[in-house]
Amino acid sequence: MPRIALGLEYDGTDFCGWQRQRAGRSVQACVEEALSRVADHPVTAHCAGRTDAGVHASGQVAHFDSPSARTLRGWQLGANGYLPPDASVTWARFVPDDFHARFSARSRTYVYRIINQQGRSALYRTRACWVPQPLDAERMREGAQRLLGRHDFAAFRAAECQAKTSVRTLHRLSVEREDRWITIEACADAFLHHMVRNIAGVLIRIGLDDAPPEWASEVLAGRDRRHAGVTAPPGGLCLVAVSYDTAFGLPGASA
Amino acid sequence: MPRIALGLEYDGTDFCGWQRQRAGRSVQACVEEALSRVADHPVTAHCAGRTDAGVHASGQVAHFDSPSARTLRGWQLGANGYLPPDASVTWARFVPDDFHARFSARSRTYVYRIINQQGRSALYRTRACWVPQPLDAERMREGAQRLLGRHDFAAFRAAECQAKTSVRTLHRLSVEREDRWITIEACADAFLHHMVRNIAGVLIRIGLDDAPPEWASEVLAGRDRRHAGVTAPPGGLCLVAVSYDTAFGLPGASA
Repeated sequence: MPRIALGLEYDGTDFCGWQRQRAGRSVQACVEEALSRVADHPVTAHCAGRTDAGVHASGQVAHFDSPSARTLRGWQLGANGYLPPDASVTWARFVPDDFHARFSARSRTYVYRIINQQGRSALYRTRACWVPQPLDAERMREGAQRLLGRHDFAAFRAAECQAKTSVRTLHRLSVEREDRWITIEACADAFLHHMVRNIAGVLIRIGLDDAPPEWASEVLAGRDRRHAGVTAPPGGLCLVAVSYDTAFGLPGASA
Repeated sequence: MPRIALGLEYDGTDFCGWQRQRAGRSVQACVEEALSRVADHPVTAHCAGRTDAGVHASGQVAHFDSPSARTLRGWQLGANGYLPPDASVTWARFVPDDFHARFSARSRTYVYRIINQQGRSALYRTRACWVPQPLDAERMREGAQRLLGRHDFAAFRAAECQAKTSVRTLHRLSVEREDRWITIEACADAFLHHMVRNIAGVLIRIGLDDAPPEWASEVLAGRDRRHAGVTAPPGGLCLVAVSYDTAFGLPGASA
């Protein structure tokens, strides 16, 4: 049965997250309903990164199986016709049976955006985390350096995180300032539940001079969630890319 | 009585525009209500550019008069406390009696954003105009060149435009492509009602090869609104800056 991979974009503000819930409007339910209408049979969708409520995606990847004969354009534009305005399909590709959006993914890239200015922002209220006190991006960068590589990130996982192991490899953790914007970009083989938002919370504390850059190492070494402080709010977070073996020929996602 | 100038930012999606209406949620009514609560007396606000329903602002400027003793920080943060989440005050300054947000303005700068890709965008659905067919930015730029300078822009005004004269000076009209984004930036002494959206509509037609770049000159010379075609949708438009004599010491607005 043909397997199809999709690129997905969504504004997480009014979703309860990717995963289907007993109550609440999930991205998964909207995508599955749209694809089921295009396919004319019930469809189950699997995604690369199960984003939380309020978290956005410009480069989410999902796959599903369908025996229905549709062109790639038919899958993309058909699904867009049934999806609500805050979710859209950015591309569609046929993939082999052994492709799995989640298990075949080699790495995920998330961006966490901070708007660092005295007054709150109306235009970016749901797309960035507002920090009114001055942040020192250089200090944040020093803290970030200490988290790179393969570590047990238990201190950065949510209490309800269900992953079997908390060892992950953080390939990149950059902090860039441009005017009033601070952008944290994190790339890892995979992330634990709340991991990027907990890292952002630690880096913000360091940037505010509430803690020294070395504190990032201490939190990591402690392997205890209670040491990491505040989880940064979801609106600043966006899943921007998922990478796969180039043999699958999937488009690179853009931010 | 002290006069105060404010920088304003708003997401125009859920507003009926700047101007107070009999029905509908206007930016003016929200701003006046918030300022009246901070001032403890009814306040009337005057703005530099009366944006339409759905049009955004990152650099709107307004002024009001109040005898109430408040610091600039008090005006800004106080108003932000009473404004809804989709509107915010970005700065406040005391200005002399002869300052008027609208009549003292030397120029206004608007940005019109187009997202040029096959599928619709969920994340930018209210912040950009989606054009699925390929646009040629170079052709759009050639068309734009033909509108620069002092002209009678009658062909680009809305039927309901109330300005006494339709002569305006267009200082800058740039068209830049970056990946899937096309950004039109327009700076003029002042704009007629729907002028930027009508210019964007003409440039989009030229970019689609529905008309040659010379058509921009023909529309302009015709001075007849019926020749200019489609008004581009409001969500792509944002008032990014208003400039005044530097003697007033107001902050430069940012996009």
